[in-house]
Amino acid sequence: MAAEPNNWGRFGPDDQRGTLNLLTPEVVLRALAAATTGRVLSLAMPIRGATSSAAPHSVPHLRGRPLPQHFMSVDGADYAAGARAIGAGLRVADDALIVTPHGTTTHMDALCHMWAGDELYNGHPAARVRSYGAARCGIERAGGVVARGVLFDVPRHLGLDHLPAGFRIGPELLEEIAPEVRPGDVAVIRTGWPLVWERSREEYWSGQPGLSAGAGRWLAGRDVAMVAADNAAVGGLNAGQLADEDAEDDLHLILLWRHGIHLAEMLWLEELAAAGRSEFVFVAAPLRIEGGTGSPINPLAIL
Amino acid sequence: MAAEPNNWGRFGPDDQRGTLNLLTPEVVLRALAAATTGRVLSLAMPIRGATSSAAPHSVPHLRGRPLPQHFMSVDGADYAAGARAIGAGLRVADDALIVTPHGTTTHMDALCHMWAGDELYNGHPAARVRSYGAARCGIERAGGVVARGVLFDVPRHLGLDHLPAGFRIGPELLEEIAPEVRPGDVAVIRTGWPLVWERSREEYWSGQPGLSAGAGRWLAGRDVAMVAADNAAVGGLNAGQLADEDAEDDLHLILLWRHGIHLAEMLWLEELAAAGRSEFVFVAAPLRIEGGTGSPINPLAIL
Amino acid sequence: MAAEPNNWGRFGPDDQRGTLNLLTPEVVLRALAAATTGRVLSLAMPIRGATSSAAPHSVPHLRGRPLPQHFMSVDGADYAAGARAIGAGLRVADDALIVTPHGTTTHMDALCHMWAGDELYNGHPAARVRSYGAARCGIERAGGVVARGVLFDVPRHLGLDHLPAGFRIGPELLEEIAPEVRPGDVAVIRTGWPLVWERSREEYWSGQPGLSAGAGRWLAGRDVAMVAADNAAVGGLNAGQLADEDAEDDLHLILLWRHGIHLAEMLWLEELAAAGRSEFVFVAAPLRIEGGTGSPINPLAIL
Amino acid sequence: MAAEPNNWGRFGPDDQRGTLNLLTPEVVLRALAAATTGRVLSLAMPIRGATSSAAPHSVPHLRGRPLPQHFMSVDGADYAAGARAIGAGLRVADDALIVTPHGTTTHMDALCHMWAGDELYNGHPAARVRSYGAARCGIERAGGVVARGVLFDVPRHLGLDHLPAGFRIGPELLEEIAPEVRPGDVAVIRTGWPLVWERSREEYWSGQPGLSAGAGRWLAGRDVAMVAADNAAVGGLNAGQLADEDAEDDLHLILLWRHGIHLAEMLWLEELAAAGRSEFVFVAAPLRIEGGTGSPINPLAIL
Repeated sequence: MAAEPNNWGRFGPDDQRGTLNLLTPEVVLRALAAATTGRVLSLAMPIRGATSSAAPHSVPHLRGRPLPQHFMSVDGADYAAGARAIGAGLRVADDALIVTPHGTTTHMDALCHMWAGDELYNGHPAARVRSYGAARCGIERAGGVVARGVLFDVPRHLGLDHLPAGFRIGPELLEEIAPEVRPGDVAVIRTGWPLVWERSREEYWSGQPGLSAGAGRWLAGRDVAMVAADNAAVGGLNAGQLADEDAEDDLHLILLWRHGIHLAEMLWLEELAAAGRSEFVFVAAPLRIEGGTGSPINPLAIL
Repeated sequence: MAAEPNNWGRFGPDDQRGTLNLLTPEVVLRALAAATTGRVLSLAMPIRGATSSAAPHSVPHLRGRPLPQHFMSVDGADYAAGARAIGAGLRVADDALIVTPHGTTTHMDALCHMWAGDELYNGHPAARVRSYGAARCGIERAGGVVARGVLFDVPRHLGLDHLPAGFRIGPELLEEIAPEVRPGDVAVIRTGWPLVWERSREEYWSGQPGLSAGAGRWLAGRDVAMVAADNAAVGGLNAGQLADEDAEDDLHLILLWRHGIHLAEMLWLEELAAAGRSEFVFVAAPLRIEGGTGSPINPLAIL
Repeated sequence: MAAEPNNWGRFGPDDQRGTLNLLTPEVVLRALAAATTGRVLSLAMPIRGATSSAAPHSVPHLRGRPLPQHFMSVDGADYAAGARAIGAGLRVADDALIVTPHGTTTHMDALCHMWAGDELYNGHPAARVRSYGAARCGIERAGGVVARGVLFDVPRHLGLDHLPAGFRIGPELLEEIAPEVRPGDVAVIRTGWPLVWERSREEYWSGQPGLSAGAGRWLAGRDVAMVAADNAAVGGLNAGQLADEDAEDDLHLILLWRHGIHLAEMLWLEELAAAGRSEFVFVAAPLRIEGGTGSPINPLAIL
Repeated sequence: MAAEPNNWGRFGPDDQRGTLNLLTPEVVLRALAAATTGRVLSLAMPIRGATSSAAPHSVPHLRGRPLPQHFMSVDGADYAAGARAIGAGLRVADDALIVTPHGTTTHMDALCHMWAGDELYNGHPAARVRSYGAARCGIERAGGVVARGVLFDVPRHLGLDHLPAGFRIGPELLEEIAPEVRPGDVAVIRTGWPLVWERSREEYWSGQPGLSAGAGRWLAGRDVAMVAADNAAVGGLNAGQLADEDAEDDLHLILLWRHGIHLAEMLWLEELAAAGRSEFVFVAAPLRIEGGTGSPINPLAIL
């Protein structure tokens, strides 16, 4: 179940409670049973923000997005250079992070991230999403996710290292791979596309494989709680880094907007795929950024 | 167990593997058994970064620290004002977060966060912690935490709403409250101090209750995997917002530096305390910020 | 005159050309004659952004505003700690600045900074000021300012170190001090209020002296090109750090909005006051931040 | 002359006073005589930080550098969407800028920006340049620059639109173009390289023309106060965006480090070149960023 909002500050009667509402305590408890070995894997890419180096550019990202920046405000080198210790001899390293999660790192989308017309998911007015944050459907409403994860390893199923850029995963493939997916599960979609990055950034940016509209509808019909993919947009992208589908068939609109199904993108699924486990406990704990359109996350798989 | 580092980029032979090494798969599996109802609670304070308002100041923080900043780069108001939709009618909200976790929000410390002399935990050279990040003991080495959480609700044990600022929790109190704590557990320490914030910021800043050096040694002797507290520094603070202890007795030096026990601070434990559960599954998934001194987190308790 | 916009990018027919249009080449040339000794003074406060210290808090600012942050991404300490030089032995220090100019440092306001109703200065639609910047009246339209500066040293005129918090400067005082102010001049208003900061921050925040509405109208009637003050808002502030005036009498609305007179705030005028010169060349060169609501500046007085 | 440091805060006996010490009041006064028409030109490129768009990438910059980010924290669209006005009806737009000046925008280098060995210019210890800023030779020491500018329009002299990437300007060319340059002048070097950007970013990044070591020595021998160029590094760059010269001949080491001559880079000189004026008043007012390695600037030419 989604973490219950705590009673911090303005939290009280909470119209967002139902967001991840398939995740009832019973579902959570049943999900935990999917752990059989206790091995824990991180499904996140690193956040590299070493600003005066090429490091931030070495992690897969959509072209043109502002990459993470990470700064030390005091560090070990400062002490090596003569900075004085605090009080009785303590030395401290402190830092700051600047991050725009969409398109740059492993993250989870809030329900306010995308919509059509004037209303967000569930009729909330889009005009309440303003410069100072989303007063509706912000990421702080999502709560933590503890659910059964079901891996759809599409390239493995097809005998490929990764799907080609133009590949759109149809519902029949999902049906073949994991017919047992059920309400409240997190559907984890592997395309293998991040593997392309090491070979060629230009190829990575040439397009991306992803779910077809039919697959999105198939997942929505199964009442999954969340879709988490290793590509950048759950659906596919063209060479302009945009979705090809029209509004009717756009994956974000189908899943996030029409059905209130949270999305996570840019996961790193290679160790998970290698582990050969199709079911596991999936945990994601988005930062409680009030009014945020998403959050960087470090999703965990408990095998 | 700590999430195994994935093989992303330079990851390979990893000298930090042992960091949270009490968290073996067996310990993780046993920890999951602590979940009995499946209710999930967030143990995080909100991150409020609405920069042109007083909101960031409304969340407990150490005086003088740079507060989170959160900006929308495009939002619903822009569309209300006439911004054009993307392609077939998609509207999108996008944002950026600037965060300095220590002292401002719920976070986890990396092992590089504090030390004395020229060496970090386990002899790593402190001079490798530089402006472009910590090449040793950064937060990306910690991995995710899935463990049994044991709540030390000290004020409740003493019949208080919260501990007074000058209170230092001794080992005998911990022994009284939860003698059953064992290797690999996360010790969750409640002081109730965040409750003071609503009453008076000046009182919040007048000092903070925390663990005594003896209590730190008691926990280290029990081989806990992590100590997570609702105060700002695990140990207590004086009116100058500094620790009173000398280097021998400093809590960060005892736990983080000498024993490699990760710390989490500024948790929000009120719902957990109200739930009346002393054991549960504790999950924390720090962002994989390469070279980071810590990470904002949204810790989860699965009851 | 305002610097002519260069032909960079979209610049072309420019509806803002007239913004500082009293500053014709003739006026600029005449202004330069105000320099008699060639001594140059900076009228800016320092920007202190050393994030892990109290330094940012040591510079006058409005309470609650996000203070500047300044980070080194590589520095001398890194080399002292063993970082490798570039190529043939070069060592480099590089950095980043995060700055919100209003209320935190010496800055100049763009014409889009404040308005009433739905229109900016000169009828530009306020709805064009969006999350991605002001498409109308941004600071990049202002151009550089080279003008005659006329100092209104009000406390000196009254035999005071600084004006009291509740003092509102009336038009008759301006008339007494510098009746010779003329079209195209920059009126430099000294209240002395920054001197209070060193004595007591609480006193600094208790209110601020400033121009009365009548004084604003007097200056507008004289067709000054700009008003530059050492207080935070040109007009006075109450203990809530807000203007007391209604919309009719608000100084920003009178000067910036109704008359298109640029404002600069939070100047440091003490050396200028000590120099005893009432006329000089005033230069301000706001950064060409496209769509910016203002810019930090380092105004110069050439005596 | 350089602006005299004001007596703000720690400023007092100032070992950096001599930095721009050729700029005595007499030199400033003489420089002002170079203005004959009063026309004012900005020599800066725009700062484009509209983060959710391609705009930041549309301005010339070195590949891989973190581009400016500009965020509105409240804006006109928010009011269009229903945000409430302040008090008596004021509406306000407020914003923040994140900027790393080197390689991304028109800026001025501090004397701490580059060095070899363990000492900065004039023997200052490089180890004092730390994560929290440069305690020696920071940009706040430079002061404002008011000087005679002398334009070296090299491509025009050679009948070219712009110099080719591999071109290194020799001293004899400078001697031919402006033999009259004298102590305290600002040498403004036009290569025309920014014109290449519009044609092809890849070509812009393929290298850059610049001064030869001999030209740097020629300028240093003439005791200029500053060298300001429209390329990214005053000297030339190879395809790796690095200088080809060894430490003996590196332009930054010759000018900035050995002679304490400030540098400004990435200027936009096309309108100035078109104006056909070889002498003018040059003004640059770097922000007083304490400990900064440089500052974004909007240099002005008063013709």
